[in-house]
Amino acid sequence: MSRLVFILNGPNLNLLGKRQPEIYGSDTLADVEAACRRIAEAAELEIRFHQSNREYELIDWIHEARDCAAGIIINPAAFTHTSVALLDALNCFEGPVIEVHISNIHKREAFRHHSYVSLRADGVIAGLGVAGYPLALQHMQRLLE
Amino acid sequence: MSRLVFILNGPNLNLLGKRQPEIYGSDTLADVEAACRRIAEAAELEIRFHQSNREYELIDWIHEARDCAAGIIINPAAFTHTSVALLDALNCFEGPVIEVHISNIHKREAFRHHSYVSLRADGVIAGLGVAGYPLALQHMQRLLE
Amino acid sequence: MSRLVFILNGPNLNLLGKRQPEIYGSDTLADVEAACRRIAEAAELEIRFHQSNREYELIDWIHEARDCAAGIIINPAAFTHTSVALLDALNCFEGPVIEVHISNIHKREAFRHHSYVSLRADGVIAGLGVAGYPLALQHMQRLLE
Amino acid sequence: MSRLVFILNGPNLNLLGKRQPEIYGSDTLADVEAACRRIAEAAELEIRFHQSNREYELIDWIHEARDCAAGIIINPAAFTHTSVALLDALNCFEGPVIEVHISNIHKREAFRHHSYVSLRADGVIAGLGVAGYPLALQHMQRLLE
Amino acid sequence: MSRLVFILNGPNLNLLGKRQPEIYGSDTLADVEAACRRIAEAAELEIRFHQSNREYELIDWIHEARDCAAGIIINPAAFTHTSVALLDALNCFEGPVIEVHISNIHKREAFRHHSYVSLRADGVIAGLGVAGYPLALQHMQRLLE
Amino acid sequence: MSRLVFILNGPNLNLLGKRQPEIYGSDTLADVEAACRRIAEAAELEIRFHQSNREYELIDWIHEARDCAAGIIINPAAFTHTSVALLDALNCFEGPVIEVHISNIHKREAFRHHSYVSLRADGVIAGLGVAGYPLALQHMQRLLE
Amino acid sequence: MSRLVFILNGPNLNLLGKRQPEIYGSDTLADVEAACRRIAEAAELEIRFHQSNREYELIDWIHEARDCAAGIIINPAAFTHTSVALLDALNCFEGPVIEVHISNIHKREAFRHHSYVSLRADGVIAGLGVAGYPLALQHMQRLLE
Amino acid sequence: MSRLVFILNGPNLNLLGKRQPEIYGSDTLADVEAACRRIAEAAELEIRFHQSNREYELIDWIHEARDCAAGIIINPAAFTHTSVALLDALNCFEGPVIEVHISNIHKREAFRHHSYVSLRADGVIAGLGVAGYPLALQHMQRLLE
Amino acid sequence: MSRLVFILNGPNLNLLGKRQPEIYGSDTLADVEAACRRIAEAAELEIRFHQSNREYELIDWIHEARDCAAGIIINPAAFTHTSVALLDALNCFEGPVIEVHISNIHKREAFRHHSYVSLRADGVIAGLGVAGYPLALQHMQRLLE
Amino acid sequence: MSRLVFILNGPNLNLLGKRQPEIYGSDTLADVEAACRRIAEAAELEIRFHQSNREYELIDWIHEARDCAAGIIINPAAFTHTSVALLDALNCFEGPVIEVHISNIHKREAFRHHSYVSLRADGVIAGLGVAGYPLALQHMQRLLE
Amino acid sequence: MSRLVFILNGPNLNLLGKRQPEIYGSDTLADVEAACRRIAEAAELEIRFHQSNREYELIDWIHEARDCAAGIIINPAAFTHTSVALLDALNCFEGPVIEVHISNIHKREAFRHHSYVSLRADGVIAGLGVAGYPLALQHMQRLLE
Amino acid sequence: MSRLVFILNGPNLNLLGKRQPEIYGSDTLADVEAACRRIAEAAELEIRFHQSNREYELIDWIHEARDCAAGIIINPAAFTHTSVALLDALNCFEGPVIEVHISNIHKREAFRHHSYVSLRADGVIAGLGVAGYPLALQHMQRLLE
Repeated sequence: MSRLVFILNGPNLNLLGKRQPEIYGSDTLADVEAACRRIAEAAELEIRFHQSNREYELIDWIHEARDCAAGIIINPAAFTHTSVALLDALNCFEGPVIEVHISNIHKREAFRHHSYVSLRADGVIAGLGVAGYPLALQHMQRLLE
Repeated sequence: MSRLVFILNGPNLNLLGKRQPEIYGSDTLADVEAACRRIAEAAELEIRFHQSNREYELIDWIHEARDCAAGIIINPAAFTHTSVALLDALNCFEGPVIEVHISNIHKREAFRHHSYVSLRADGVIAGLGVAGYPLALQHMQRLLE
Repeated sequence: MSRLVFILNGPNLNLLGKRQPEIYGSDTLADVEAACRRIAEAAELEIRFHQSNREYELIDWIHEARDCAAGIIINPAAFTHTSVALLDALNCFEGPVIEVHISNIHKREAFRHHSYVSLRADGVIAGLGVAGYPLALQHMQRLLE
Repeated sequence: MSRLVFILNGPNLNLLGKRQPEIYGSDTLADVEAACRRIAEAAELEIRFHQSNREYELIDWIHEARDCAAGIIINPAAFTHTSVALLDALNCFEGPVIEVHISNIHKREAFRHHSYVSLRADGVIAGLGVAGYPLALQHMQRLLE
Repeated sequence: MSRLVFILNGPNLNLLGKRQPEIYGSDTLADVEAACRRIAEAAELEIRFHQSNREYELIDWIHEARDCAAGIIINPAAFTHTSVALLDALNCFEGPVIEVHISNIHKREAFRHHSYVSLRADGVIAGLGVAGYPLALQHMQRLLE
Repeated sequence: MSRLVFILNGPNLNLLGKRQPEIYGSDTLADVEAACRRIAEAAELEIRFHQSNREYELIDWIHEARDCAAGIIINPAAFTHTSVALLDALNCFEGPVIEVHISNIHKREAFRHHSYVSLRADGVIAGLGVAGYPLALQHMQRLLE
Repeated sequence: MSRLVFILNGPNLNLLGKRQPEIYGSDTLADVEAACRRIAEAAELEIRFHQSNREYELIDWIHEARDCAAGIIINPAAFTHTSVALLDALNCFEGPVIEVHISNIHKREAFRHHSYVSLRADGVIAGLGVAGYPLALQHMQRLLE
Repeated sequence: MSRLVFILNGPNLNLLGKRQPEIYGSDTLADVEAACRRIAEAAELEIRFHQSNREYELIDWIHEARDCAAGIIINPAAFTHTSVALLDALNCFEGPVIEVHISNIHKREAFRHHSYVSLRADGVIAGLGVAGYPLALQHMQRLLE
Repeated sequence: MSRLVFILNGPNLNLLGKRQPEIYGSDTLADVEAACRRIAEAAELEIRFHQSNREYELIDWIHEARDCAAGIIINPAAFTHTSVALLDALNCFEGPVIEVHISNIHKREAFRHHSYVSLRADGVIAGLGVAGYPLALQHMQRLLE
Repeated sequence: MSRLVFILNGPNLNLLGKRQPEIYGSDTLADVEAACRRIAEAAELEIRFHQSNREYELIDWIHEARDCAAGIIINPAAFTHTSVALLDALNCFEGPVIEVHISNIHKREAFRHHSYVSLRADGVIAGLGVAGYPLALQHMQRLLE
Repeated sequence: MSRLVFILNGPNLNLLGKRQPEIYGSDTLADVEAACRRIAEAAELEIRFHQSNREYELIDWIHEARDCAAGIIINPAAFTHTSVALLDALNCFEGPVIEVHISNIHKREAFRHHSYVSLRADGVIAGLGVAGYPLALQHMQRLLE
Repeated sequence: MSRLVFILNGPNLNLLGKRQPEIYGSDTLADVEAACRRIAEAAELEIRFHQSNREYELIDWIHEARDCAAGIIINPAAFTHTSVALLDALNCFEGPVIEVHISNIHKREAFRHHSYVSLRADGVIAGLGVAGYPLALQHMQRLLE
């Protein structure tokens, strides 16, 4: 069975650690990737770590994951609340899907309370800051056993 | 008068026939295109058949259609429910527009019941499976006479 | 297997072609029936073509269809938006059901956007004018093969 | 020009004067008809005065009015709030339409505040008791001059 | 005092036992009537047991009940959710009214949760299957003592 | 008993006949007053006919009416939809109140469908043009007998 | 198979017969229990009859019923409308559940129209007064055969 | 600084592993506690692990935590959606709060989508099954450093 | 006539003065009780002053008040917004009821704007801080004279 | 520091004691003013007591209060629910504001449940009848110390 | 053609620069008028600059503008959200109308997001502070050429 | 300080002047750019003027602006109403943001009334046609001084 996990990040996350630190903290996405790689190595998982501001790239990666990946961890960022296309792409994927949000979206503006991705995700981690990623990966490892 | 019809397909339809067959059936998009070409040939219509996961490509094709096409058949897939940009692009096109959905969107989740594209489309065909495409094309032929 | 298809028409459609031609066109219901009969003959289907302003007659015909018909094509007209009884009758019928609307109900008043019948119909054709009927019948033929 | 006016009454109005007099008063529908006939005679109008508990009969009378009547006065009773079919029938009629309610529907249950018929009616008289009918007829006379 | 009870059944209930047995069970309306007659006999009640797909027939029976019946048991079926006319008719009746539903309408589609008839009914029995009828009749007997 | 009727007109009605004739017609408020005075004379009623763009003047006139008038006819114009203060003032008046609207407010923008004044008015006349005033006065006469 | 039925009563029902008799009647809960015991004896059922103002006690009794009872009759009173915890407890119970309300909750304040318990209950009896209990028990007996 | 963490569990979780395993899995609450104790020991944290069907006990434990605990992990179960009192109690606590749900509440009934507790919780973990507890505890450890 | 007044306090008010002083101020519940006792003594009223985090205790005290108290002053705290059971208990009490809130709930989160208790309370005092209690008691005294 | 308090009264309160005594009681506004003056004298406060049916006069008084008054007590009457202008005026005032309603607005029509003024008021007293004024003034005195 | 432009200001704007400077800045209305006069002079426009807390004065000025002005610039302040009367007055004016708001009303409370005046205004400028006025006037000049 | 301003244009604006001139006028985007360049030159501002149908390009330009631009003027076109990603990108930018719409979006379809971008924009100009751009730039100049 594949030991490959996709970790996908949505729009504006390329600025992580450089904007609104009171909401998103000061770690960069490179820091997040490094933390995930440490977990992955220990767990003998392979990861592909991507970020894009382009909805279609996220869709394409999910399609690609259909052929080679065992699970997907996704922080859809703003697309969480608006992208049915992302939901539909995830509906095409059969392995486990974990949704991660750095901030607790339920404490923010009302339009951030609804997630299309949650309609497909097996689990959701929100508000644990960037620590949500390695926890998601740990859980993914367990699911893949 | 132009005899050219654009047939445009939205996100995730590249996986048609490979995902969720209980909803979308087992025909692929290539099968759909072939069926449309058969109709087009008989009707002496020219068709351009496109699919994209990229909202902007759909918009660009619609803009292109303004200059050369007589009609547009569009299955906007997930963009149906979320893309005002697509609606605005179609509002720039003056010929007939037919909206096609493979599944009956009115029997699915509530957020699939509303279509921005229907605010502009002349007609809508939903739930006839991939057979909706050739029927739309037949009807387009009649409109163009 | 039965080759009989019921084509049912709801209230005010007896005036088709005689009222609001900017919405409904100038073909009469007799024209529609004739067009359907041409398709049916070619397809070796038998049809029963009815119109009524009476909700109960539509219900009774659907009940009758349970015993003898293979499929139902229905333009419920105003009952589309208000008749749970019609939905329940169709829920008693086991063959394919196609819902037809002459105008694109999604571009009209808000109360015309919801269809009880769509909760049961396999497919929906709207806004193709009276041409929606023969297309529905063509599709019904395919389903019955 | 026709001097014929249809005065149509919806469901349960056959019991007028015999039920809930605190809402509807003690005059019967025969009293209402007599009052209307007095006005009509003075005004040299002809009237046809009907009541039915059957939605289709009201629709059929409106269709009939298309051929012979100059105007319609209608108390749709309970159908006011539920019948799109009645609205559609009235949409087929081209003369003036006046909607009458014996009680002030805006002071009653919330579901009585919305009228499909008002979307077509030229005028509405509500809450004047049975006196609303002769006033409507007086107004109709003026419109027909 | 009258010992006559009307038991009225709305649209599609003529198919009871022949459709959707997972919702409505396998007893027919004749079985229901027989069960009611057994209760009635024991209780020295007279019953009139009717079914109609016609809203106006239900209304007419309720009007008739005003003159001769002591109570009404009604399963309005689909009209439950759409018929203000039925509510208004029941508002003209002065004896006890019990509303019966074979299925638990509160567990079904959202549009089945609201009942116009409940605004008038003294009591409601739902989800007890066809056994709801004899229980309603037992209760009616008690009320009439 | 007093034979005095107040006829009150809300904001912008001073421009009646001079603005938006497609909605409000070409009669001026002076024409309306003249028509009312003709009715009043024949009916041996006294009238006070006022117009104001000032909410408080309308309130003050209603308070004044408490002491001397038998009934109030009011066209609250824009205040219909926004003035609880007017409703409360009318709640202090004990005689009959008839609400008049020149246009059929139910066919206009959604915010014009709700009337605070209707919660108190005994009757409502809408959409009969300026003819609504004399009809209201005729009805008032009958009520005062 | 167990012949034990739990009959559970929610908050304020200890005051039954002593408060708001125009809504709840004059029988006390002891009267209700006695009536249920008569039915139970005749039907060779055992009953446990409880009332509590404590949500947790109702939950604990339902948990207890999992081990020993064949069915539950419950009048959740005010918890009907607010307690997801009660719903979840009932979701843990596998036998038949009948919900009883003394008054017809659909005729009362809007917040009483929704029942969390109805999402699990097999049947609902409302508005038959305290007579709803013995009828529910009779029905339970039939279900347990 | 305190190394004590409260782990609180809401109503019906005493049945964990014994009910609806398709939603909640087959681990019992004792299993969950054991898993948490293993983590706690390794992390040199002390834990108090409680479950109650009583809202007030959860409140009391949170009040108690104010005096002695560094953080709270809470699975409020059904109280998630209904208890403002729990939210207010948590608002009195100053350390980190992590909310855990075994199932993905966003994929279940609409009334489970809203959480009062999320308005206070720093982070939320949902849908990871019972594995959500140890992950929450791991994260709590990091927060307490 | 009884001179006894119950002063009841809902969940989390035991922490008054110790939590969120920017909302609730720094007086403790003991301070509030002392202030009330001073008023009571001067007014020759007897008071019973209670606080509980348990909904049922509040209900039980209200039931108790039926037998011995002349009036109830209640600060339902979080139960204000969620407890129909408390409303129903108060509906069983016949004397005057005054609802007190320390903060102005109308300036806080939307879910705090609705009060079930206000549907029964004769008067409401909100946002006057703990001074609301003695004012309520002063008013109660006047009512009991 | 100023010892001047404005007590402002909105539309229709000039009729206090003369209208709807079942809602507003039989005391007149002069009685209210007298009661306030007694309190003021004892408390060595100066008061200005005004009433107006004119929204702008209330606004002007509030503007005037900016220059000379320490606090405002306001019963906005009908403007409570409709006047953003009053809210904005109060937002310009920096001292304490207490909102008074004679009746309990939460038990009346739904449109009376929302108060724009409450968004600014520090405290609200409702339903204590005219006794709410002196209590508000007593509280104001305390705030001004 | 007239070169006269009315610049109208709604309630509380007389306090501009003296209240809530964090929202409205520190310029006074006199400063705004001076800035407008400078623009007007350069553009050879005449202006009438008014402010009122009285809805009717704004209406009267708009009526006056019908006879002499070419365009209207209006900052309706609080009336933006509540005054249908103002909208109706503007509907009587035929020249261009520009709506100005000093603050960005879309970032403030929800009730400030809707503007009745926007339903008539040709253009809207919001959130540019008092600089919005001269920009509006510049634009008006262009429209009048 | 930077004197560079980004002027960004969303989807379909490449067709400006070529489509729906009754809504958008006849100037092209090149005309708009030229007008802006004239203003910029006079004001000694540098501008970058972009249009894209691609959401991600707009996001990327906003990210780029973080490093080099002093302000952003944006006409998000259809993305106004649907793109949280654009809002989040703008939330990463610290300088002034002005939102421009050519048409008055508040007079168009309801879904165009809400703007995600307005939640971040400092100011909004709508309905002034293409003249809104140079006015926005003028204002930007002032802000940058």
